[in-house]
Amino acid sequence: MKIIVLAGGEGKRMWPINTDKCLIPFLGKSLLYHNLKKINARLPGVEFIIVASPQTKDGVEKVAEELKLDYKIVIQNEPSGMADAILSAKHLIAGEILIVNAEDILDASVFQNNYEGDVMLTGIKVDKYFPGGYIKVEGESVKGIVEKPGEGNEPSDMVKLVADYFKDGQKLIGYLEKAKSERDDIYEVALSQMISDGINIRLARYEGVWIPLKYPWHILDITAYFLSKLEQQISPAAKLSEKAIIEGNVVIEEGVKVFEGACIKGPCHIGKNCIVGNNSMIRESNLEEGCVTGFSSDITRSYIGANSWFHTNYIGDSVLEGDFGAGSGAVLANLRLDNQTIKVGEEKLDSEREKLGLIAGQGVRVGVNASTMPGVRVGGNSLIGPGVVLRKDLKEKRKITIKEESYQEQDYESAATTYDQFRDKLKH
Amino acid sequence: MKIIVLAGGEGKRMWPINTDKCLIPFLGKSLLYHNLKKINARLPGVEFIIVASPQTKDGVEKVAEELKLDYKIVIQNEPSGMADAILSAKHLIAGEILIVNAEDILDASVFQNNYEGDVMLTGIKVDKYFPGGYIKVEGESVKGIVEKPGEGNEPSDMVKLVADYFKDGQKLIGYLEKAKSERDDIYEVALSQMISDGINIRLARYEGVWIPLKYPWHILDITAYFLSKLEQQISPAAKLSEKAIIEGNVVIEEGVKVFEGACIKGPCHIGKNCIVGNNSMIRESNLEEGCVTGFSSDITRSYIGANSWFHTNYIGDSVLEGDFGAGSGAVLANLRLDNQTIKVGEEKLDSEREKLGLIAGQGVRVGVNASTMPGVRVGGNSLIGPGVVLRKDLKEKRKITIKEESYQEQDYESAATTYDQFRDKLKH
Amino acid sequence: MKIIVLAGGEGKRMWPINTDKCLIPFLGKSLLYHNLKKINARLPGVEFIIVASPQTKDGVEKVAEELKLDYKIVIQNEPSGMADAILSAKHLIAGEILIVNAEDILDASVFQNNYEGDVMLTGIKVDKYFPGGYIKVEGESVKGIVEKPGEGNEPSDMVKLVADYFKDGQKLIGYLEKAKSERDDIYEVALSQMISDGINIRLARYEGVWIPLKYPWHILDITAYFLSKLEQQISPAAKLSEKAIIEGNVVIEEGVKVFEGACIKGPCHIGKNCIVGNNSMIRESNLEEGCVTGFSSDITRSYIGANSWFHTNYIGDSVLEGDFGAGSGAVLANLRLDNQTIKVGEEKLDSEREKLGLIAGQGVRVGVNASTMPGVRVGGNSLIGPGVVLRKDLKEKRKITIKEESYQEQDYESAATTYDQFRDKLKH
Repeated sequence: MKIIVLAGGEGKRMWPINTDKCLIPFLGKSLLYHNLKKINARLPGVEFIIVASPQTKDGVEKVAEELKLDYKIVIQNEPSGMADAILSAKHLIAGEILIVNAEDILDASVFQNNYEGDVMLTGIKVDKYFPGGYIKVEGESVKGIVEKPGEGNEPSDMVKLVADYFKDGQKLIGYLEKAKSERDDIYEVALSQMISDGINIRLARYEGVWIPLKYPWHILDITAYFLSKLEQQISPAAKLSEKAIIEGNVVIEEGVKVFEGACIKGPCHIGKNCIVGNNSMIRESNLEEGCVTGFSSDITRSYIGANSWFHTNYIGDSVLEGDFGAGSGAVLANLRLDNQTIKVGEEKLDSEREKLGLIAGQGVRVGVNASTMPGVRVGGNSLIGPGVVLRKDLKEKRKITIKEESYQEQDYESAATTYDQFRDKLKH
Repeated sequence: MKIIVLAGGEGKRMWPINTDKCLIPFLGKSLLYHNLKKINARLPGVEFIIVASPQTKDGVEKVAEELKLDYKIVIQNEPSGMADAILSAKHLIAGEILIVNAEDILDASVFQNNYEGDVMLTGIKVDKYFPGGYIKVEGESVKGIVEKPGEGNEPSDMVKLVADYFKDGQKLIGYLEKAKSERDDIYEVALSQMISDGINIRLARYEGVWIPLKYPWHILDITAYFLSKLEQQISPAAKLSEKAIIEGNVVIEEGVKVFEGACIKGPCHIGKNCIVGNNSMIRESNLEEGCVTGFSSDITRSYIGANSWFHTNYIGDSVLEGDFGAGSGAVLANLRLDNQTIKVGEEKLDSEREKLGLIAGQGVRVGVNASTMPGVRVGGNSLIGPGVVLRKDLKEKRKITIKEESYQEQDYESAATTYDQFRDKLKH
Repeated sequence: MKIIVLAGGEGKRMWPINTDKCLIPFLGKSLLYHNLKKINARLPGVEFIIVASPQTKDGVEKVAEELKLDYKIVIQNEPSGMADAILSAKHLIAGEILIVNAEDILDASVFQNNYEGDVMLTGIKVDKYFPGGYIKVEGESVKGIVEKPGEGNEPSDMVKLVADYFKDGQKLIGYLEKAKSERDDIYEVALSQMISDGINIRLARYEGVWIPLKYPWHILDITAYFLSKLEQQISPAAKLSEKAIIEGNVVIEEGVKVFEGACIKGPCHIGKNCIVGNNSMIRESNLEEGCVTGFSSDITRSYIGANSWFHTNYIGDSVLEGDFGAGSGAVLANLRLDNQTIKVGEEKLDSEREKLGLIAGQGVRVGVNASTMPGVRVGGNSLIGPGVVLRKDLKEKRKITIKEESYQEQDYESAATTYDQFRDKLKH
């Protein structure tokens, strides 16, 4: 069997995260690495045909080499839908194929050992409306696919996942080449034609984990997923103070230093060469390599990209792509005071999260005593000046500061108190 | 003997604290509870006639039931002075009566086992002017009462407390019904008439503790009083980390959790189900039930009403009615830099305290990195936005934020440094 | 031999530090004390002639008495150059003299046991331009002195230190009285004349430590120098919590208290009666006596003058003259986000330091949650209001605050959440 891995899709909705979705690292390895490793273990000996974009090609290749896969890479020059991606690889397709997404999180059980019939699609039952493809079901047969039907118009409670089996890959190619659509749904049109032509499409009902990655805050869901799989493992090449506290399922990589009074409560992953400073507290978070959390930092349920640094900050439920820096006293607020879910951007996109902090692209800097409001997004290499309260999104390479005119200067007859008076006051 | 408890007075000067004075909880029980329990223990078997307001009725009844008192409750519909309060209960008054305030803190010794004579009032010697009633004294006899004589016009250094004994309660009723005054001093006029009629009023000189509750910062004095009575007592149903520090007379109620690195220095009361987070420090404070002090909070000499929550805050000498919430980095300043006592409100009311933080009604929220200046008052359900420096009082249901125009945005040519450079800088 | 100590120079470039340079204390003793003690140990039995200013006289006398020196003090009424300073002492000069600066840090080895020849000057090799006097060298002979030649015009790589030996002090007096110059270089003119007259001036090449004190940030270099000499020494009259961490070469003087969770990482000097509060961290810093670091303060590589107090602050690479006070959450930033060295003042004076915090005169106060930018200078007795971000220098006795107009107030329909909802959110 050949596995067609779709790894070239664009991620407009991921702004300000620029890293291609499947290459975002978790626990030190990219999402693609984790997913291909899982398939390769479940279906040993398969061949991978990976459809990459020009941007993802190098990263994809590195992953395939590291996993020692039997693989070929195909480049899709423009991201223009699933059908186009599959057609990019048509010269390599022959016999049985299984089409999968590079970035969706699914349990290994979704990949079956014995596929039967000509076509088998996979559905998952949902509790509430999801903006994807729904499956028209009759018994165990698929009778149609409806893309984004809109809430209330769903043909069933079954959403189609991308784990599509075809006994004859070339037959699919034929259907794709004939299918026509104005919309971005040529693949679904081709499937409908198959059904019209009497081809039996079987439904596999999947009941495991499914975490799609559409918006940047989904990175927090994926982080939580990977953290939930951890067991405690501390590198012998890490230096931990005896006065630090490590509790629960914490993975600490080589070269890490943890100083006195620091507290790491699992599940947590602390990447290579990270420094966890005195009195810092890290909970339920993933730190990629080379991060420094200075004195008394507090990092909770966050994704922290490589080489980020902190000093006495509160970082809650935040997604920081990497090379992030925060001055002392900067706070990334994560909780609205009115009990509503966090809405993102001018379009008030509902994150459906009650807690969401900052979402920052690569290289963002936050000045001392600055604050960012829940769900704010900041483009790469931007600067939030000291003392600023940032309430709205900021584009790439922008700098926001407090105007000098906000201050007034006057003479000051300091009622200089003696030391002893102050000391008395300060004593307790 | 019947004890007439005045528990219906209004508390205009207590703004923004809305809870009726006698129902404010300390150590998990209302002031009324503490006071009636003390009287009941000192004078077992007495009957209580409690004059409540429509607002306090339920709370008063609950206290009386809990203490299993022999009691009756009378409702005074409008708060209109002490004489009116007593007259509300005239149908229940017969024989010996002792009139007391529901909220004043006095030692049990003020309630005597054997009262003698027809009338006995209680006075306390004061060092400086107090805006209350002064007693004209001759030997051990009261020769008159002067309400708020003004500084320099005091007839003596004896202020009249409310612990007034009358052998014949109905005789007092008669005098009250005949007394007339334009001012709020009918009770004192009635006493003067008694004296004119030759009734001998004896003076009991009291030398113990006396803490009146007129202004909200007096809650801090009462807190200190109750804390001074504590002995260490830790509920077996509390969970204390072995890496937490508990020192001195600390009472920890059931359901409390204290995390690693937290430090509680007595005297302190930590109410039911409170959570004291990592590295938090609590000193000389009363926390009512259900409070959460997140990471690295610092609470000193404060009254913290139920269900308040904190996260990396400094809370000094503050009175927070309850359901208070503070974002990370918010600071309630408590000390003027010019060594003066803290003045409160536009009228510059002198609190006579060198340290006084925020006084907040129920449900106040303070945003991340916001600051409040010493002695500021904030009405219930108001919001102090992130980064705001609040220098003046805020009414109920108000929101104060920084104007967007205070910021400027520009292009930013980030001199993005490499990770290694930063890492070198940050290493020590 | 007589040692002429120049201790009356002015220090315009030291603003906002007002303490005369040689009287600035390090490790509890003034710079003059350290320097004279070193000379006295190296050259026992010499006589000191100290040229003081009217301002330094008392301090100088105290030092000389404490060291039990054989000394005389001469007052130079106006600070007008080295020649004038020496001439102030001409009535005391006879025989061999050695002229030294009161404040430069030099190893003892610079003072030689056996001076030879008529005149011996001392030079140090420099790697890059220094704005001082350069020596024209031929073999081991001095052929001239060039004051501040400008970069690229240096006659050699040898900068002249002030450690000048004259076999016949009165001969120098004679030359000084005859020398004339419009500029502040009469001393150098006199030396040139000596050379012209055929007097052989020998050169001593010095290779040890040399730290001049010209700008206030040099105080940090001198602090590092003194700290580097420390060995761990903890006064038996200090009280250290068993839960505090003391690491490395830390000197703790008598009367010091160190509370639970505090961490002092050497080299550090903690002066008499200092209080190091709970969870505070102090690294590579000198605290003069009577300082108080409240809860969770973080002091790094800084000079902290006597009687300063802190409460949850970050103090990095800062020079605080003394009696400094900072409210909770105030941050003295020390690092530019663009990797440049810190420039100081409107004239953008390059400190050549990548990290430099605040430079504050005596009695400066910083409000809660205020921030100061790297390299800012603040004159004595000034106040930086709460929440202010100070980007530029502030003169003496000035007060800078946020304008009230920066805020807006509105009605607030608080979506008051119930306690249980919040509690659920806050639990982890």
